[in-house]
Amino acid sequence: MEQSIAEKIIALEKEALTEWNKGNPSVYLALYSQEITYFDPFAEKRFDGFKKMKAFYETLRGTISVDKSEMNNVLVQGNDSMVVLTYNLNSYSDGKWNCTEVYCLEKDGKWRIIHNHWSFTKPNLGL
Amino acid sequence: MEQSIAEKIIALEKEALTEWNKGNPSVYLALYSQEITYFDPFAEKRFDGFKKMKAFYETLRGTISVDKSEMNNVLVQGNDSMVVLTYNLNSYSDGKWNCTEVYCLEKDGKWRIIHNHWSFTKPNLGL
Repeated sequence: MEQSIAEKIIALEKEALTEWNKGNPSVYLALYSQEITYFDPFAEKRFDGFKKMKAFYETLRGTISVDKSEMNNVLVQGNDSMVVLTYNLNSYSDGKWNCTEVYCLEKDGKWRIIHNHWSFTKPNLGL
Repeated sequence: MEQSIAEKIIALEKEALTEWNKGNPSVYLALYSQEITYFDPFAEKRFDGFKKMKAFYETLRGTISVDKSEMNNVLVQGNDSMVVLTYNLNSYSDGKWNCTEVYCLEKDGKWRIIHNHWSFTKPNLGL
């Protein structure tokens, strides 16, 4: 994989996350492929497809306000048409997260996310 | 992506999971690339690299015994050299899991896992 691809993917993610932290999901939605699949800790099963993700993210619009967050251990693996970006997110007011984003170079020449998996880092389990 | 690739990846995963459920991590380890990266709910940060994963999985050898598990909503996305496999795992005695596995076709012609993310489905958070 060319280094420039890793830099591009990280820049896309940072931009989307910055807006997310202001309560704006539009930049993530613009990055999501029609075939997006999605896991998060609050869902009973995987979300499949852009329509479901848009409906879900619209319910969160305006509800999130994170002043400070850090993307740690940022890594991009893969090849020139598909990569996986991973990082540990410290989102101060919203906990610590493990993040996996699979990006594909789509036919129109744009990188889009086909799979996204968010989970808590060492969740405090009520076991 | 050719359908035969999806079938091959699912077969590899089932074989690894079957052995995992008997306490044997060797089949997952044989699938892990040298560049494997790994998230699970018990780790403070991402594990990077085969050596760390082997050391970690060897501590679990013989400790897991799952009689019944189901891979639900199994899906493979990607292209002919890299794919992402996702599913909801119902591992009866060991909880419900969200699973993401990113497989790459490596230079020796074998598919190996370069990233693995396990998290609990709707964890019971002690909030």
